[in-house]
Amino acid sequence: MDYFYGPGRNHLFVPGPVNIPDPVIRAMNRNNEDYRSPAIPAMTKTLLEDVKKIFKTTTGTPFLFPTTGTGAWESALTNTLSPGDRTVSFLIGQFSLLWIDQQQRLNFNVDVVESEWGQGANLDILESKIASDSSHSIKAICIVHNETATGVTNNLAKVRQILDDHRHPALFLVDGVSSICALDFRMDEWGVDVALTGSQKALSLPTGMGIVCASPKAIEATKTAKSVRVFFDWNDYLKFYKLGTFWPYTPSIQLLYGLRAALDLIFEEGLDNVIARHSRLGKATRLAVEAWGLKNCTQKEEWYSDTVTAVVVPPHIDSSEVVRRAWKRYNLSLGLGLNKVAGKVFRIGHLGNLNELQLLGCLAGVEMILKDVGYPVKLGSGVAAASAYLQNSIPLIPSRI
Amino acid sequence: MDYFYGPGRNHLFVPGPVNIPDPVIRAMNRNNEDYRSPAIPAMTKTLLEDVKKIFKTTTGTPFLFPTTGTGAWESALTNTLSPGDRTVSFLIGQFSLLWIDQQQRLNFNVDVVESEWGQGANLDILESKIASDSSHSIKAICIVHNETATGVTNNLAKVRQILDDHRHPALFLVDGVSSICALDFRMDEWGVDVALTGSQKALSLPTGMGIVCASPKAIEATKTAKSVRVFFDWNDYLKFYKLGTFWPYTPSIQLLYGLRAALDLIFEEGLDNVIARHSRLGKATRLAVEAWGLKNCTQKEEWYSDTVTAVVVPPHIDSSEVVRRAWKRYNLSLGLGLNKVAGKVFRIGHLGNLNELQLLGCLAGVEMILKDVGYPVKLGSGVAAASAYLQNSIPLIPSRI
Amino acid sequence: MDYFYGPGRNHLFVPGPVNIPDPVIRAMNRNNEDYRSPAIPAMTKTLLEDVKKIFKTTTGTPFLFPTTGTGAWESALTNTLSPGDRTVSFLIGQFSLLWIDQQQRLNFNVDVVESEWGQGANLDILESKIASDSSHSIKAICIVHNETATGVTNNLAKVRQILDDHRHPALFLVDGVSSICALDFRMDEWGVDVALTGSQKALSLPTGMGIVCASPKAIEATKTAKSVRVFFDWNDYLKFYKLGTFWPYTPSIQLLYGLRAALDLIFEEGLDNVIARHSRLGKATRLAVEAWGLKNCTQKEEWYSDTVTAVVVPPHIDSSEVVRRAWKRYNLSLGLGLNKVAGKVFRIGHLGNLNELQLLGCLAGVEMILKDVGYPVKLGSGVAAASAYLQNSIPLIPSRI
Amino acid sequence: MDYFYGPGRNHLFVPGPVNIPDPVIRAMNRNNEDYRSPAIPAMTKTLLEDVKKIFKTTTGTPFLFPTTGTGAWESALTNTLSPGDRTVSFLIGQFSLLWIDQQQRLNFNVDVVESEWGQGANLDILESKIASDSSHSIKAICIVHNETATGVTNNLAKVRQILDDHRHPALFLVDGVSSICALDFRMDEWGVDVALTGSQKALSLPTGMGIVCASPKAIEATKTAKSVRVFFDWNDYLKFYKLGTFWPYTPSIQLLYGLRAALDLIFEEGLDNVIARHSRLGKATRLAVEAWGLKNCTQKEEWYSDTVTAVVVPPHIDSSEVVRRAWKRYNLSLGLGLNKVAGKVFRIGHLGNLNELQLLGCLAGVEMILKDVGYPVKLGSGVAAASAYLQNSIPLIPSRI
Repeated sequence: MDYFYGPGRNHLFVPGPVNIPDPVIRAMNRNNEDYRSPAIPAMTKTLLEDVKKIFKTTTGTPFLFPTTGTGAWESALTNTLSPGDRTVSFLIGQFSLLWIDQQQRLNFNVDVVESEWGQGANLDILESKIASDSSHSIKAICIVHNETATGVTNNLAKVRQILDDHRHPALFLVDGVSSICALDFRMDEWGVDVALTGSQKALSLPTGMGIVCASPKAIEATKTAKSVRVFFDWNDYLKFYKLGTFWPYTPSIQLLYGLRAALDLIFEEGLDNVIARHSRLGKATRLAVEAWGLKNCTQKEEWYSDTVTAVVVPPHIDSSEVVRRAWKRYNLSLGLGLNKVAGKVFRIGHLGNLNELQLLGCLAGVEMILKDVGYPVKLGSGVAAASAYLQNSIPLIPSRI
Repeated sequence: MDYFYGPGRNHLFVPGPVNIPDPVIRAMNRNNEDYRSPAIPAMTKTLLEDVKKIFKTTTGTPFLFPTTGTGAWESALTNTLSPGDRTVSFLIGQFSLLWIDQQQRLNFNVDVVESEWGQGANLDILESKIASDSSHSIKAICIVHNETATGVTNNLAKVRQILDDHRHPALFLVDGVSSICALDFRMDEWGVDVALTGSQKALSLPTGMGIVCASPKAIEATKTAKSVRVFFDWNDYLKFYKLGTFWPYTPSIQLLYGLRAALDLIFEEGLDNVIARHSRLGKATRLAVEAWGLKNCTQKEEWYSDTVTAVVVPPHIDSSEVVRRAWKRYNLSLGLGLNKVAGKVFRIGHLGNLNELQLLGCLAGVEMILKDVGYPVKLGSGVAAASAYLQNSIPLIPSRI
Repeated sequence: MDYFYGPGRNHLFVPGPVNIPDPVIRAMNRNNEDYRSPAIPAMTKTLLEDVKKIFKTTTGTPFLFPTTGTGAWESALTNTLSPGDRTVSFLIGQFSLLWIDQQQRLNFNVDVVESEWGQGANLDILESKIASDSSHSIKAICIVHNETATGVTNNLAKVRQILDDHRHPALFLVDGVSSICALDFRMDEWGVDVALTGSQKALSLPTGMGIVCASPKAIEATKTAKSVRVFFDWNDYLKFYKLGTFWPYTPSIQLLYGLRAALDLIFEEGLDNVIARHSRLGKATRLAVEAWGLKNCTQKEEWYSDTVTAVVVPPHIDSSEVVRRAWKRYNLSLGLGLNKVAGKVFRIGHLGNLNELQLLGCLAGVEMILKDVGYPVKLGSGVAAASAYLQNSIPLIPSRI
Repeated sequence: MDYFYGPGRNHLFVPGPVNIPDPVIRAMNRNNEDYRSPAIPAMTKTLLEDVKKIFKTTTGTPFLFPTTGTGAWESALTNTLSPGDRTVSFLIGQFSLLWIDQQQRLNFNVDVVESEWGQGANLDILESKIASDSSHSIKAICIVHNETATGVTNNLAKVRQILDDHRHPALFLVDGVSSICALDFRMDEWGVDVALTGSQKALSLPTGMGIVCASPKAIEATKTAKSVRVFFDWNDYLKFYKLGTFWPYTPSIQLLYGLRAALDLIFEEGLDNVIARHSRLGKATRLAVEAWGLKNCTQKEEWYSDTVTAVVVPPHIDSSEVVRRAWKRYNLSLGLGLNKVAGKVFRIGHLGNLNELQLLGCLAGVEMILKDVGYPVKLGSGVAAASAYLQNSIPLIPSRI
């Protein structure tokens, strides 16, 4: 039943779907259940409470959609906006591009702020647009917290500050797909109106749950939002929340138990420790890239991503060949370069339930592959640079002290 | 990690989500994988070929959406129709009602043909509407093959005949959620344009995959269908089918392996044998209901459903109490009566990977519950009636002969 | 990977190995671990404490051998006795016979007290032997608490009383393989010196753990017991208990986690409730057998077993054919008649993690099979008799009240 | 349910129990079954045939005991020898010591040939003993193929040659616990009479199956072997082999399915490729140790083990602290030094279902730990040495070419 089985473990370093912890795999290893029995609503209630913690919100309302990140985007947009509404969106890579495409197809009037791929969202332009929008024609700012294609993290606190400085009422919609539960994200503090992520990213679950969290202002916006929506309609959920049965249609029993286990693991480790671990893994990866003499696709340190690193290969090398060899020879799964950076970068995802030795195994593999494809890397150099940092910074595992 | 655990196995007899066979649970018991490696497209290709068999189509194009039946509905409608289009839809129970509600919210002009709950779609009215629609204002017939709320199976061959008799070009859209893979369903022969089901029904998988199959005519209709759609858009899938990468966004790796295992089991048993097994289980259930002296919610034999039986309780009994006691005392999960028949019927789902002794255990349980709630059933009577029929009709298990 | 797969769930009603609860399957669904890390000893320590509860002992010392019941027997005997030692053993069925065979091959001087199969141990003869053994030549009484081949439960309290009445110092060794955790068993109160069970019986785990519990007197006996033993030697374990590492050789990590989960479930249900459930299932089965007009192999009520019922078929019927058809046609696994009762009885195991509706499904199946093989059973009669009793006696599931 | 959980995957590098491949975990994720149904004997038959391949025997008879390696030893000895029989045994480390201890406790007359720990069996002494034993008082040569405590592989072909040169009829008993399925082992070619392994070693299963394979000469020896045995008696198995039911007592259903899956994976990879992979991993590990400036406990290249490397730490370092830190800080499980080499060596197990990047992750971890404990290792040096070799020698994964 396995396709193309290789000996030993697959080293999964794409930036999603990511490695699922064994306790979560175990929790999902189960038969279906009646979702209308008292058990599932009881569990759902605790999940909705607990999931707010990973958004760092107490006032938000979460929705657990049986969908993917793409569906979560659609839910965020259609519940809060009406066709023709002006949004400001930042095109900085493949995933922001796809979200912009969705906004256009949903008939919003998208004001695209484009940057070179490898740069963050241009917040200066945002500021000037906001400053000049005294009529409040801008209904929403749509921004990807972490652009997975280029490994760029945007400054969300700054976005909020710009809006506040100009007392601009635009909704603040954030794609946190490759950030939430891995990077520092503060829904309430930053005044984010809708934040969303997908189960297969830092939560380390299978694909299939799009988690959307809405501020009171966003919930209020549903009353006037005229976008057509049924499957993704928050109000159907809210109706069932009130009834205490929670589900307008059938959820995945397995993903609910999986989410329960995933949250338990995250809270056991401590969300801040999880974020610190990602920071460690991100920095270690960048140190390795530097030691190899290669360039990070991300152009400035302020945008460095702790969940994914896009590595630029020299012009004579095809980065797709790096990814192909990784899989064919080393049972290592790396991320391809996408669209504008296809062939030019490969990506190392370092998010989710992952530890340092897993990363070092991956880095050792990348070194061999680089040599395979003709790049004169010094074997061991990246691992050495990464371990020098890690050996100083890895904490003891709390449960084992 | 279990909520409200009871000793022994839960007897899951709601009409979905249904029991997952152990080999399928095993197949899904796995880590994530890179869906852009060669393995997942290779597997997807075989899945798309094989899934057509359960629709009995060779010309259809299947889509495996990460969604539920509700999302599959939305996909069927938005890809083929435009706002304002006239649809004929049959209101015969809770699920047809919800689909009609969706059609209305998607801004179609829904021509509702209502029947008493417990009756099938009124095809005489359909015929008269079709006959009088010389202008072809009716763009689509939307019909639920099997209404899960009342246990009513509609005659799809008849619908096709009516359309053909009048050379009417309306699209023929079928909700096969509680029928496909369990009841006799023939997409090509009956000229169905879009058929759909959900993974958690007769396919016996977890919730999370909405399977939609489109005829060439339906695919053609996407070119003019103006309904807004992004997540549910077939054309995004078709683009990736052509590229051979198959997925516009991340699928659930686990559900793909699960679907592979589920199809393998179905083909090993033989689809026609699977259908025959459902027919056996359906008839056995109805014989038990009759022996108990209770009424089937389904009013005529021609509409009897082989996947779910809605049992009418006497007026002085609350059917919800039957369901509550089943769960609280017998670890048996039965379906509630919904909406108009709330409190009046309880439902026995007998679909998916289920065998005769499982059903007899359930029927024995129902007998005790009926007694618990004050209905003077003769214990053993339903089991006796069902077994008398089953003992004559169960075949040997082919692999064990 | 499945052999002879049939649709739906296998109905496992052999008296071991029995159904494993899903939470236990989940708990064992895991990779290996280093058994010398601090984690496994920490877990082992709690297991050894908790496992004593199922023996109802506070003074006993438990051993978790990676073996089966047969190995547990060997461990009980070789650690406490020397070649040539006289044991009194009761031959009442296949498993007592096998244990006696083992005792003989281990060179003990076995004083066999034989009864007709279907009768319990003849304790009158025991009494006369004990009474006349003023020299204390009898070193041990070896008795099977529940003879799985015939469904006979022996009166252990009586054995203790006989020994006490005569102030006889013989060791009291009990095979509790198909009793412990299902029948009322009281190691301390009854002064049992060695009691043992296997993981695949009432504990509802996979095969592979032989659990032996030794009284202080039995531990003392090891000092003089000259039987050759290495793998099964308690003293090797005791040495590692003292070191706090617990394992003289590698345990099954999976079974340790499984045992943890199994005990948790048992304690959650309550050991006395577990025993009461077995009593209910045993009585319901016997009522069904009576309703079918068939004889219980067990000749008197005082010996009725609540974990297994051996059903005598009429002379013209081959009970093996009952078992074969059960498997081939109904996906039902029943126990064969063994040795002297081969062809004459089939056995229904009703032990372990099992509930009432599972049993009723099995009984409904047996009825159809009896009809298949030509016995004129009234279909539904056994189910009716069993449910009449069960409907009055099943408690609400405590976690769901 | 997890003890001392740490984020990310546990890096399991003890020389057993080893990592279980995911497909094997999946195959064992199942309920019990009746082992007397036709399914289990049918599967057992194929297992017994296939398991011979990993011993490279066509004439041997395999036994799958529900036990550990210690039990397999006992089975090998008691079935072929009588108390008082003279055996020649080699004391070269902790596991050969334990086997010798067992031989002595089983009352054999053990002629111990001791070597310094880190050296192989002294075959010169063997030769002189054999040469001078014209009376054939030596009944068996007992040798550990691979001493797991020191990482020493003995030359079995040489043992056979010595016996043949002197036409000595002694039985040739081999502990292949940490060799079979990983190192080159040829039962028939080398005239091994009993070979044995444990499931949790190179077969990459859970603990609980002791696999013993007996030559026709060994089977013949059972007729005169007077050692007391019941649980471990081959003749009980042979009796059931003839009956076609195969099992004298209950096997673990899960381990049978696990073994099926494990063998399927091994045959898919190719046994010779599996052995070559171990050779690669062994050599890479040794190159790393050398690069770190540390000594291999194994004193000569001819004894180098491809399944485990015992690394000698400098005198001022406690190797137990290396193991403790590995677990506490890096979620890495290394093997302790045992007995004579306690505190002096730590062990890296590189056997079973393992690939190169997993090993490199481990080696990177060891480097950091060495630095933690005050050894001035150059970070990256071992990884560099290992990868330089591996990058030249890793083949493409055959299924992915």
